[in-house]
Amino acid sequence: MTGKVRFTIDDIAREAGVSRATVSRVLNQKPDVSAQTRARILEILERRQFVRDPVAAALAGGRASAIGLLMPRLEFGWATEVIVGVGEAAAAHQRPLLLATTVYQERNEAQWIRLFQSRLVAGVIAILATAASVARLKQAFDERLPLVLVDYEGHEAPFPRVEAANYDGTRRAVRHLIELGHTRIGYITGNANYGCAHARLAAYRDTTRSAGADCDPELVVEGDFTEYSGYAGAKRLLSLGEPPTAIVCANDLSAFGCLKALREAGLRVPQDVSVVGFDDVPGAERSEPPLTTVKQPLRDMGRSAFELLLRYLDGKATPEPVVLTMPTELIVRASTAPNPRRV
Amino acid sequence: MTGKVRFTIDDIAREAGVSRATVSRVLNQKPDVSAQTRARILEILERRQFVRDPVAAALAGGRASAIGLLMPRLEFGWATEVIVGVGEAAAAHQRPLLLATTVYQERNEAQWIRLFQSRLVAGVIAILATAASVARLKQAFDERLPLVLVDYEGHEAPFPRVEAANYDGTRRAVRHLIELGHTRIGYITGNANYGCAHARLAAYRDTTRSAGADCDPELVVEGDFTEYSGYAGAKRLLSLGEPPTAIVCANDLSAFGCLKALREAGLRVPQDVSVVGFDDVPGAERSEPPLTTVKQPLRDMGRSAFELLLRYLDGKATPEPVVLTMPTELIVRASTAPNPRRV
Repeated sequence: MTGKVRFTIDDIAREAGVSRATVSRVLNQKPDVSAQTRARILEILERRQFVRDPVAAALAGGRASAIGLLMPRLEFGWATEVIVGVGEAAAAHQRPLLLATTVYQERNEAQWIRLFQSRLVAGVIAILATAASVARLKQAFDERLPLVLVDYEGHEAPFPRVEAANYDGTRRAVRHLIELGHTRIGYITGNANYGCAHARLAAYRDTTRSAGADCDPELVVEGDFTEYSGYAGAKRLLSLGEPPTAIVCANDLSAFGCLKALREAGLRVPQDVSVVGFDDVPGAERSEPPLTTVKQPLRDMGRSAFELLLRYLDGKATPEPVVLTMPTELIVRASTAPNPRRV
Repeated sequence: MTGKVRFTIDDIAREAGVSRATVSRVLNQKPDVSAQTRARILEILERRQFVRDPVAAALAGGRASAIGLLMPRLEFGWATEVIVGVGEAAAAHQRPLLLATTVYQERNEAQWIRLFQSRLVAGVIAILATAASVARLKQAFDERLPLVLVDYEGHEAPFPRVEAANYDGTRRAVRHLIELGHTRIGYITGNANYGCAHARLAAYRDTTRSAGADCDPELVVEGDFTEYSGYAGAKRLLSLGEPPTAIVCANDLSAFGCLKALREAGLRVPQDVSVVGFDDVPGAERSEPPLTTVKQPLRDMGRSAFELLLRYLDGKATPEPVVLTMPTELIVRASTAPNPRRV
């Protein structure tokens, strides 16, 4: 830290041959400045050592190689499996990671987005971004920092993204139950704002309808991917005049809650009621009974998100937002059995 | 970004009533400035908007609540389990996390240490820090940013730390084999620079000696916690004039390599040779055969590291470096059986 700092935004603007407002836009990382102009202004700012923060100064020397990861929480389950995949790919490519969690607080998210924009990272993977996050990410990253989404709240996103074959997976699960003779199949939904929840519910509806199974609206109860919502949803389904003989849950966590409600009601799984989950999180095979579920290739999804991002960084991918849909697989364990009412 | 930047380090020094060198030390995050002086200078720098980096400026407003995590790699296994524990505690306390991986490159580590020092985080947990990292962390964090270590390379560390009861765990494992009638027990070590590897080897030596079992130096082969070192170590033990009837490995990963070598040599586990690991990583119960091992409470260790750090942040803990030793447990599965030569 030596030397004097004796220049103003006007000095920078003059040197760059742009307006004061343009320099200000670059400093505040606002859009509507051409890449070329932005680069010229950043170069002048750097040369003038305008950026005085020790971190930024330290980083001004090299091009960032790290990949940023943005996610709500880092807990055991779905998201942890995805980030393990990202972590394995990053280790294989010798790329450092910078993972930031928001605990669903906008203030934290804003802080991490600013951090990612400060040239500490070369690109960002956002996992389970909320709808508000997707909007903010669009504003923050559009055309500037490569961004890949892995599942997100919303039905369309302006970024390349990785997701599982949600529709196909649920269709297989429902067909499996129909082959077992079930005709009255309940469904506990996920948070409907998420594209994956929407696709799974659509597959349940289409598949039961086309198979001629019961399609009463009362067979669909609303959940939000939590264990409690599976528990409460199962209680509601059991209180119906004619309860279902099988229940499909939008994810494993809610299926665990569903199993608990059935146990409390004195019903045996799968003898009395069949249950199917979605995800195949670690733990699904150790549930009581081991859960029949739709496996998402979670680590592969993480690895693929990383590889997709690298392709963008290397300029090998088109700038068009692509969707990488990863195959799902029905894993039949002990929570599904033939319809007892038909036997 | 408005206004002019028309002040020098001399201006700041004058206002703070300190020397130019002291201001420079604070700006460069060097030691030997009292906390009070540092705070005064930082306050002036902030008020003067000396910090112009958008990230730092955005952060200048509030006190950081995030916890930083520094680790070599984010891959499936030991470290992932620990960070899941940290993640669960962070989510429970609504604290955002900022996790940075170094892929063992000093340049990355230096970058992340600077980042953590820039008031983005309130405290740091370092997982599996190398000896060089511990030295750098000491220089960077001593007395400034609370830091907790979870396993590290070295035998003494100047920071509060969380570790498993390594000595006790290995003692139980060796006693288990002795109770099964084994008197010739091999040992494949971990990277001896890590305190945990040192403690486990010491426990193996003490326990075999006090039980009157064979103590030939040739029974101890050097490993480094990798699967390959377990594989190569087992081959060496099998090539001895009198091979051991049981092998204790410093961790599960090397035990997996050991099992592979035994399989290739046409030996059955546990009928011909017994094998014990250490860690109980996910996967130990699914190995062929399921591995008898010493369970480290990995998630609890992560959670405890987080809680310990919070106590420091809240000023509830003494500034003395404490060691939190978490209990280990022998998990007997199918890879250990009575000594076939004694039956």
